[in-house]
Amino acid sequence: MNKIEHIGIAVANLAEAEARYEMLLNTKAYKREEVLSENVITSFLMIGETKIELIAATSPESTIAKYIEKKGEGMHHIAYAVEDIHQEVKRMIEQGFQPISKEPKKGADNKWVYFFHPKSANGVLVELCQEIA
Amino acid sequence: MNKIEHIGIAVANLAEAEARYEMLLNTKAYKREEVLSENVITSFLMIGETKIELIAATSPESTIAKYIEKKGEGMHHIAYAVEDIHQEVKRMIEQGFQPISKEPKKGADNKWVYFFHPKSANGVLVELCQEIA
Repeated sequence: MNKIEHIGIAVANLAEAEARYEMLLNTKAYKREEVLSENVITSFLMIGETKIELIAATSPESTIAKYIEKKGEGMHHIAYAVEDIHQEVKRMIEQGFQPISKEPKKGADNKWVYFFHPKSANGVLVELCQEIA
Repeated sequence: MNKIEHIGIAVANLAEAEARYEMLLNTKAYKREEVLSENVITSFLMIGETKIELIAATSPESTIAKYIEKKGEGMHHIAYAVEDIHQEVKRMIEQGFQPISKEPKKGADNKWVYFFHPKSANGVLVELCQEIA
């Protein structure tokens, strides 16, 4: 674990949230990216070494749409940057963290991503991510 | 806004959460601190330039106890490091962010802290904090 790579925030309206976070952080969002496999569109803002990832659903089938319907907008996950995602996944499973993913898969922002259940980390959905070389 | 100073996570049992996050982040918690005015006890872990602040209630009257009763354990707030908290509070109020605090007050970890309502930031409770000189 090197750093917090990003904090994912589930939002209802991407443009509105982007404008608000640009004000809050006093910086411009530098990238939007759609993740077709997840039915989401994301927007990224830098703050120090970390990113805020705003995530909006593009379909009612998206897990983000269901999340917002159930819990409202808010913090969705914390993503940690790792150098060897397979090794970290193995370590965490051995330590009792409960995997959600089967294998690392391609996520937003050119990353391999892997998720652990919120039950494993005091209610926080944990993402590991590794830059795709 | 310089960086994310910490992410606050509301937990039911501090010792249990501390042990779990020490495993997750592969680092030891470096400080526990009780904040009497808030009826909470906190534990801090470093990850890169950011901290994870685990927060447990020490009384049923604590806002953390009420938060967990209502929503369960999970991410409670994002705290941003600022250099001039009065100036940043003024800027954010002018931009329409909804204050909770009246004035910056002393929080954990030798900081002046000030909070904005989650409605202002897509469901995320926002803390500004400035190191007490």
